[in-house]
Amino acid sequence: MMKVVKIALLGLGTVGGGTYRILQSRHDKIMAEYGVDIRVAHILEKDLSKAQALGIDLSIVSTDINNVLQDKEISIVAEFFGGIEPARTFLLKSLEAGKSIVTANKELFSKHWAELEAAAVKGDAGLYFEASCVGGVPIIRVLHESMQGNDVLSLKGIVNGTTNYILTKMSDENSDYASALAEAQRLGYAEFNPTADVDGFDSMYKLSILSTLAFKKRVPVTAVFREGITRVTATDIACAAQLGYAIKLLAISKNIGGRVEARVHPTLIPVNHPLAAVKGSFNAVYITGDNVDDIMMYGRGAGDLPTGSAIVSDIVYAATRGIKVRYPQLSRESEVDNDFETAYFIRLCVQNKKGVMAEITSTLAANNISISQILQNDSHDTASVVFITDNTAESNMQKSIQALSALSSVLSVDSVIRVEK
Amino acid sequence: MMKVVKIALLGLGTVGGGTYRILQSRHDKIMAEYGVDIRVAHILEKDLSKAQALGIDLSIVSTDINNVLQDKEISIVAEFFGGIEPARTFLLKSLEAGKSIVTANKELFSKHWAELEAAAVKGDAGLYFEASCVGGVPIIRVLHESMQGNDVLSLKGIVNGTTNYILTKMSDENSDYASALAEAQRLGYAEFNPTADVDGFDSMYKLSILSTLAFKKRVPVTAVFREGITRVTATDIACAAQLGYAIKLLAISKNIGGRVEARVHPTLIPVNHPLAAVKGSFNAVYITGDNVDDIMMYGRGAGDLPTGSAIVSDIVYAATRGIKVRYPQLSRESEVDNDFETAYFIRLCVQNKKGVMAEITSTLAANNISISQILQNDSHDTASVVFITDNTAESNMQKSIQALSALSSVLSVDSVIRVEK
Repeated sequence: MMKVVKIALLGLGTVGGGTYRILQSRHDKIMAEYGVDIRVAHILEKDLSKAQALGIDLSIVSTDINNVLQDKEISIVAEFFGGIEPARTFLLKSLEAGKSIVTANKELFSKHWAELEAAAVKGDAGLYFEASCVGGVPIIRVLHESMQGNDVLSLKGIVNGTTNYILTKMSDENSDYASALAEAQRLGYAEFNPTADVDGFDSMYKLSILSTLAFKKRVPVTAVFREGITRVTATDIACAAQLGYAIKLLAISKNIGGRVEARVHPTLIPVNHPLAAVKGSFNAVYITGDNVDDIMMYGRGAGDLPTGSAIVSDIVYAATRGIKVRYPQLSRESEVDNDFETAYFIRLCVQNKKGVMAEITSTLAANNISISQILQNDSHDTASVVFITDNTAESNMQKSIQALSALSSVLSVDSVIRVEK
Repeated sequence: MMKVVKIALLGLGTVGGGTYRILQSRHDKIMAEYGVDIRVAHILEKDLSKAQALGIDLSIVSTDINNVLQDKEISIVAEFFGGIEPARTFLLKSLEAGKSIVTANKELFSKHWAELEAAAVKGDAGLYFEASCVGGVPIIRVLHESMQGNDVLSLKGIVNGTTNYILTKMSDENSDYASALAEAQRLGYAEFNPTADVDGFDSMYKLSILSTLAFKKRVPVTAVFREGITRVTATDIACAAQLGYAIKLLAISKNIGGRVEARVHPTLIPVNHPLAAVKGSFNAVYITGDNVDDIMMYGRGAGDLPTGSAIVSDIVYAATRGIKVRYPQLSRESEVDNDFETAYFIRLCVQNKKGVMAEITSTLAANNISISQILQNDSHDTASVVFITDNTAESNMQKSIQALSALSSVLSVDSVIRVEK
């Protein structure tokens, strides 16, 4: 007797539709290879044309969550609404009714994990959210089920395809930010309102989830330092390249002897670092463990079929594993300390006259900041000076930037970008 | 009550010792995070000094496998002998006695998987071999448990750190093969007898295992085409670089509409391919699925702690999952057809006189081989000519090389290396 597992899909948007198509096209192979007959028993969707376009019998489509909650045969609920409500309420009720949930909803998981966990315990159900971070790349399961032999020391990710597409375009084609964004919007990589991506919110949600799994304690989304890419210029990228660096929007977290830091910001990384080779809309996460050393996972971070692939993997996993995956140990919240130490790239416009360099370097020295690289480009009366510093605390750098701004020879502080060496 | 799981270690060599150290240092964290108290109950090792160096109570060390087989409390056996015997016999007996096995033994698994599977079914035990391929990188579990939503179309891996170290050194420092090998031996990356690595046997074992998981049917090790790196020269690497390619020892398998090919050979890949950025002793596997698109996993392929990390992950996984992992569907063997189609890099030494190029290109054209790139370097009476061809069948290329060799103007066919574009 083949095991039958009935599931519900909440929403038939891009990823919901991709998931339905994969489940249909692979139904018989999943039966043969994993011994489970997965059937879509109900779909919540108000736009019936979406269901019709997929050839779905409309008798299983409705807008009433009770049709899912009250069907005792449905054991897995996959959610595609995104955002907090009604996803949160529907998933909490599903869990309490004993149905395992599968979701790509990073905002919901980063903000309401503890509540979902409690509902899963109450209903004896499982939590599956592989698709929430880095699309088709199975980073959630790797962090939870393959790193048991390690303390994860750090995690550095390019986890947003929109911003990586924009920065790659600025770098490869010397475009400015505005035209690279416009091109990303034209191609559908960026939303009409691009804030969630370009201001780093999407990366922040994902970093909260990934760091929580990596460090085995909650890294609350509210504790993540966040800065987007809107102030990065083509000049910054060109200067960084001259010094041997690429600029990427990195989601970085570190666990240094129990002291956790978590931050999203544009970052200079050496051009020969594997993350520097991650181009266009691709994503990658680079993890360092105390025993396994460095690991990187690379792939598509978004898209109907790559994300649908992760959703289907979770559905098959939930339908066939002997246990329900939960994360009881993650109820502890970590103390996040974001006065992190890092190196900086500082680009100044200064007066082109004797003694300016001495004034700037002595100001930095007075703040205990040493310089590892300098790049100077003269242009008549003014000069562009770029420094890469050694590591210093974020708070010390903010103070030093104020001191530099106050110098009469410094006409403007054009860029301050963090560096991971 | 904390769940107690007793395990045995067969061998305390590099990886066995690394595994023991990780299990000791992480014992309490694994209890806290995964709810299982893992205890090493017996160790097979004839060199007692290795056990003493690790502070192990010698009363649990012996050379008699019956001490493991007859201890009903031992539920997991981790093997570190390598090679076929006695590993095969000991693991078959362990499985039949109901003990799950954990191993890094790629040769054993590639040659005796079906037999191990049968014993696992008979004894109701599980098979865990994450450490057999690409050390600490969890590629086995990703292929088996995260790609359910995909037909894997192809897999391309740098799965041997020794050869990648040698080729990286030849490329970055313009070394010849012999001196790069000697340096690898001096650093401990290569064995005194380097055959298993440089002739591609190690990569062949791993490709058999990875392709079997990827394509969901057995790709027998005997069907893998294999060519090592011993004939790759610094000149090949320099010419490839001029044409925009790096040379790597790739393990390649493809499933093209049910027709499987599997091959290990030196390969030109474009310098901007993510695999070209995998340097030194690092490994990576690049997988293409029909829904997830491209994924790459990167990390250390060997070493006591990276490989020990994978062994410990398997032990915790086997100790905590509700089911025993087996691979019943893999009893089917695939038909492997190694008259594959690929592009080629051909380096010839020819007479430097009029009409030679026409003679060569017309010989290739007569065999239906078209040319995509040409590089010519004259040196007085002779010239070095390098071609990159379009795709053609392996058998057709072998025939064409014979035809080229027969031309009086061709003094020697110096290199024929396959290309993945």
